[in-house]
Amino acid sequence: MRCFLPILFAAVLMSPSHYAEDGYALWLRYPRLAPDSTSPGADECPRFTIILATPTGQETPTLALAQAELETALRHLYGQPPLVRLEAVDTDSLPYALRANDTKAREGFLIAPFTTSPQNNTSSSPVLRIAAASDTGILYGVFALLRQLQLSDQPFSNIAITSVPSIAHRLLNHWDNLDGFVERGYAGNSLWRWEELPDELDPRYRDYARAMASLGLNGTVLNNVNADARILTTEYLLKVAALADLFRAYGLRVYLSARFSAPIEIGELHTGDPLATEVAAWWRAKAAEIYALIPDFGGFLVKANSEGQPGPHDYGRSHAEGANMLAEALAPHGGIVIWRAFVYSPDNKTDRVKQAYNEFLPLDGNFAPNVVLQIKNGPLDFMPREPFSPLFGAMRQTPLAAELQITQEYLGQQHQVAFLAPMWKEFLTSETYTQGPGSTVAKVIDGTLNGHPLSLISGVANTGSDRNWTGHPLAQANWYAYGRLAWDHTLTSGKIAHEWAQLTFRNARSFDPETVETIEKLLLGSRETVVNYSMPLGLHHIMATAHHYGPGPWVDNLHRDDWNPTYYHRADEQGLGFDRTATGSNALSQYAPELQTLWGNPDTCPPEFLLWFHHLPWDYRLSTGHTLWDKLCLSYQQGVEEAQAMLSTWEKLAGKVDTERFTDVRQRLARQVTDAITWRDSCLLYFQTFSKRPFPAGVEPPPHSLSYYQSLRPESTPGNP
Amino acid sequence: MRCFLPILFAAVLMSPSHYAEDGYALWLRYPRLAPDSTSPGADECPRFTIILATPTGQETPTLALAQAELETALRHLYGQPPLVRLEAVDTDSLPYALRANDTKAREGFLIAPFTTSPQNNTSSSPVLRIAAASDTGILYGVFALLRQLQLSDQPFSNIAITSVPSIAHRLLNHWDNLDGFVERGYAGNSLWRWEELPDELDPRYRDYARAMASLGLNGTVLNNVNADARILTTEYLLKVAALADLFRAYGLRVYLSARFSAPIEIGELHTGDPLATEVAAWWRAKAAEIYALIPDFGGFLVKANSEGQPGPHDYGRSHAEGANMLAEALAPHGGIVIWRAFVYSPDNKTDRVKQAYNEFLPLDGNFAPNVVLQIKNGPLDFMPREPFSPLFGAMRQTPLAAELQITQEYLGQQHQVAFLAPMWKEFLTSETYTQGPGSTVAKVIDGTLNGHPLSLISGVANTGSDRNWTGHPLAQANWYAYGRLAWDHTLTSGKIAHEWAQLTFRNARSFDPETVETIEKLLLGSRETVVNYSMPLGLHHIMATAHHYGPGPWVDNLHRDDWNPTYYHRADEQGLGFDRTATGSNALSQYAPELQTLWGNPDTCPPEFLLWFHHLPWDYRLSTGHTLWDKLCLSYQQGVEEAQAMLSTWEKLAGKVDTERFTDVRQRLARQVTDAITWRDSCLLYFQTFSKRPFPAGVEPPPHSLSYYQSLRPESTPGNP
Repeated sequence: MRCFLPILFAAVLMSPSHYAEDGYALWLRYPRLAPDSTSPGADECPRFTIILATPTGQETPTLALAQAELETALRHLYGQPPLVRLEAVDTDSLPYALRANDTKAREGFLIAPFTTSPQNNTSSSPVLRIAAASDTGILYGVFALLRQLQLSDQPFSNIAITSVPSIAHRLLNHWDNLDGFVERGYAGNSLWRWEELPDELDPRYRDYARAMASLGLNGTVLNNVNADARILTTEYLLKVAALADLFRAYGLRVYLSARFSAPIEIGELHTGDPLATEVAAWWRAKAAEIYALIPDFGGFLVKANSEGQPGPHDYGRSHAEGANMLAEALAPHGGIVIWRAFVYSPDNKTDRVKQAYNEFLPLDGNFAPNVVLQIKNGPLDFMPREPFSPLFGAMRQTPLAAELQITQEYLGQQHQVAFLAPMWKEFLTSETYTQGPGSTVAKVIDGTLNGHPLSLISGVANTGSDRNWTGHPLAQANWYAYGRLAWDHTLTSGKIAHEWAQLTFRNARSFDPETVETIEKLLLGSRETVVNYSMPLGLHHIMATAHHYGPGPWVDNLHRDDWNPTYYHRADEQGLGFDRTATGSNALSQYAPELQTLWGNPDTCPPEFLLWFHHLPWDYRLSTGHTLWDKLCLSYQQGVEEAQAMLSTWEKLAGKVDTERFTDVRQRLARQVTDAITWRDSCLLYFQTFSKRPFPAGVEPPPHSLSYYQSLRPESTPGNP
Repeated sequence: MRCFLPILFAAVLMSPSHYAEDGYALWLRYPRLAPDSTSPGADECPRFTIILATPTGQETPTLALAQAELETALRHLYGQPPLVRLEAVDTDSLPYALRANDTKAREGFLIAPFTTSPQNNTSSSPVLRIAAASDTGILYGVFALLRQLQLSDQPFSNIAITSVPSIAHRLLNHWDNLDGFVERGYAGNSLWRWEELPDELDPRYRDYARAMASLGLNGTVLNNVNADARILTTEYLLKVAALADLFRAYGLRVYLSARFSAPIEIGELHTGDPLATEVAAWWRAKAAEIYALIPDFGGFLVKANSEGQPGPHDYGRSHAEGANMLAEALAPHGGIVIWRAFVYSPDNKTDRVKQAYNEFLPLDGNFAPNVVLQIKNGPLDFMPREPFSPLFGAMRQTPLAAELQITQEYLGQQHQVAFLAPMWKEFLTSETYTQGPGSTVAKVIDGTLNGHPLSLISGVANTGSDRNWTGHPLAQANWYAYGRLAWDHTLTSGKIAHEWAQLTFRNARSFDPETVETIEKLLLGSRETVVNYSMPLGLHHIMATAHHYGPGPWVDNLHRDDWNPTYYHRADEQGLGFDRTATGSNALSQYAPELQTLWGNPDTCPPEFLLWFHHLPWDYRLSTGHTLWDKLCLSYQQGVEEAQAMLSTWEKLAGKVDTERFTDVRQRLARQVTDAITWRDSCLLYFQTFSKRPFPAGVEPPPHSLSYYQSLRPESTPGNP
């Protein structure tokens, strides 16, 4: 007996993955733009000459990179590269914004069609010129041009962009330990293979630097703020120098987190007292050693007297005295000190969110000019939602940097979608009222409001050794959004989401604008969804212990009061929330009078900050007409429904997005739905033990008892130190 | 002023790496075979019909994979796929070797040209038929066909292969902890992302299973032999089941390392005594639970009473009593127990290499039929060279499995090239003399010498989350070699090296047989080179503490005698080496009389085992005419020179191997040279403190003092628990 059977082609089952979309290329995929489409570049590209114009017109490593990127990208996009030429440009002919003598202007660029003068015009080909005062500006301009071409399909001759970064120092902070572990990292191990350096250079280092340059990010702090002093030993500095050598052509400078007690741990001193002569001398010598190896070294990032780290308080000195001593060591070499304001004391019984303000405000005016104070966006710790830190409004004589967290420690880690641009925009556009309306946080950070030439922004990286860099394929959008906002904080979340989705998912074979739009919308709502199912209405810090994944509102057994969720939500039979008005901790008093008035009254306080500032009765009635209890329940329910909607939205993209990324995201969204339900059921059952009220209509009753949820021990998560 | 400058195309500097050879595809790259070459397949392929013939002829998931692999591969190789059909085959028409009712026969396959009978022959196309008694046999046949086509460029019609595995159970052992750390892993973290399982399935799991199937490996032990009992909890078993479900179609069965004290740690028992009723009942219930989730579960691997692991000795029971209790729990379900023989006691003052023999030989005959004893190749611990473990000769009533270490714990880890096939062949072809000449270790392991139906081989994996799977690009050859030898232990090292180099580096655009031959030769000599510059002449265990990378012959301060290098080399003013003859520990007595005679006399003992078995005076004269001291020095020098030659050989391949892998290997070979010099200088300066003799001519004098080398603290290496 013999039978002939057709076999289904099992391409989905077994397509060799080296041909698959593995996410490694990020937003730099350069897919072939449909050759028979309306894409005007396809015709134009081979006819165009692109001129890269710098003051010297000389070839440099950076210009070689810019040229190679153009050549490779345009060949992939249009099948043929254009002619690319270097040229010298008279600086005075550049737009004013590019001529100023500061970092921002030097890193800006101009892209414009250009008519060559007759004597030099050896052909009739049209010319697009990218001009800048520095080679790095040219490289940034090249990436901007390539982005623009992929976004708009407009003719080369229509492209005219002048762009200058908002903020001078645009950094990624890697919380990477020397053993490869990444604290709060959810995408594998560290990118830095210390053990192999300096002899072996992972090709990925270049791809990292290239991705950074494509966003205009110009600095990277290689190691964790909980720093290991060994990074400053000669052995490690040689490794750091190997990375710095490689990054230099990409305009990327290296910074290091410095441990304040390093003179004791890797030197032979018995003290780290910043006022001790030998300590200052040790740091001066160390700085000299660093700059001999790394002439463009950026500076030190320091976490001092915070969560157990050593610092100047250990010797009865102030943060300013500590920072200034390091600043003095770096100043001769042009380096800066980035001093973190994330401090709160185990002994201090003051509301934790007030402490950094109390500690640092009195020091305003005391810092050396090459010190910048790096402040987390909110006064607590990277919650799904917080008001901005009051220091941004109050501290006017010190350059203030924002520390944003790209890695989603409290927003679902690598399992959940939470596009953070809307959260960062909320923060950046916050009114401090320091100089009346329009005194936004963004203007504080970019230095314009208070007239500081030193400006800096930091993002705690979500990158790791995972092939797709960020674990969750959609988390790449957060790296992208951070970079784009660091360059231009006026960009909207919608614009950024659109750019990223188009660059990342566009595919000539199956391109469909609706797919991009669907992904864009999914991203835009995702952070609010996470807020809704985890910490709505201003709730904060009610996550599980240590790993910070999933709910733990009942946790009250940690040895520091201010690590316990119960410290923050203050649920009791009367109601819920932390009273931070004058009748409570009065953290509100740290803000401008306008905000005190707005936020101090529960009836005018925006619902999203309600329980951050107020302890309210369960039957308090919101402007929506709901009682607090009902609104709380409905918010959690809404979060769950939104998570479910994200999953079903995504499922409609089957066949429109490549199988690899489609499946990966689908799996994670399914888990997100499960997690959202767990958040809702855990929190509502727990808060119900105080409210003693039934769930309102429309809220699904939990299938288990509270003790079931309390017994859940989520799988140990990565990134938990 | 304006100048026009040509720009060098900086493709090397900046080729976007998603188009690069990143090593992910392993030996399954399927490059387009030069279309205008003599490759006969290019003409033939589209005309051929390939028939996959199994007893039922029914489509199954495994056959779908086989079909998809053929289709994808041949399309890549020749531009067009052939026609593929399923067909039923009468089992009786298969060759005898495929008909036997055992695992080996069932996994074998036949590939042969085939003439269809006229009534069914609807076209005149020639037919190649792959026939097997199982679907897995077909999948293996497909991979064999694809390998053959790429190796020989012969016409389809010339291909005729009948192949049956030598050994029934061909396993990879992953020493992977549940937190993602890989003990002795040098290629990143674990492939298993426990935290994401069972909901999220990394696409890499499929690529792993496919690579395993391509080599004919049919089992994987997912977790470290230093086992965490939690792997046996329901929570983890659901995760394991998700992997098993995915691996099943690839013919890959899952095994787990079981912690002997699991009934206490994850059960609620107060004892793990194998003779206690409740303990046996607990394991029976656990086995039933496992098989309900994973019907084809392979069995347990157990490290008991070894290096601190719990075991039956804790209750005064023997290894056989412990193993048999577990075997009884698994037997009803068809599972096996793989019991490790790697034991040596902290209290036992007997020469460590004698202890496993002393412990296990008395138990021969006492093990249940579904127990196999897994023995490391040598009696010590995966040294660069050891004689085979005497248990392979002595223990005849128990199925004996070989445990080989693919990960290069003692052979340069991810930094050095050490192609291990020659080492494994040396082991497999070792004469035990148990039944006279021809009683090789291979015949013990494959079960033929002692007539055991149960046969097994294990390789400690060198895979990890690194994109190229193995860290060092050339270390992929060790995974390949292990798999090929597990399938057919008669293959020569040269054949395997040739296969791997051709499959891995062949490239239509730049193919050059000389390149393959150069890589092949470099691989073949590499292990002996490592032996020469690290532990020549039978020296062993003189590496640095804990991380086992680099030299530490001076180490004498570890709390267990038998962890100290000085315990092993026994250098003194008289001479060097461990006397294991009758005048010393008499470990030699554990071998056959033929070997005792040969090895017991330093004049007939092969130089490679000289200091393993003998303590010899510094001026002992070898058959080469050199004194021991001179020969020692010259061996180290030779190792260094060979390492240097590997580097210069590789450098000649510039432009012939893709830039990515060329650079990666070059960097590592450069480090290998540095490391080789450190080994030589450290060991020679140290041994010179005893020999008090000058270095012979031709040996470069070390540039530093001994104390310099002793002060070197190599960067903390990965994989060190």
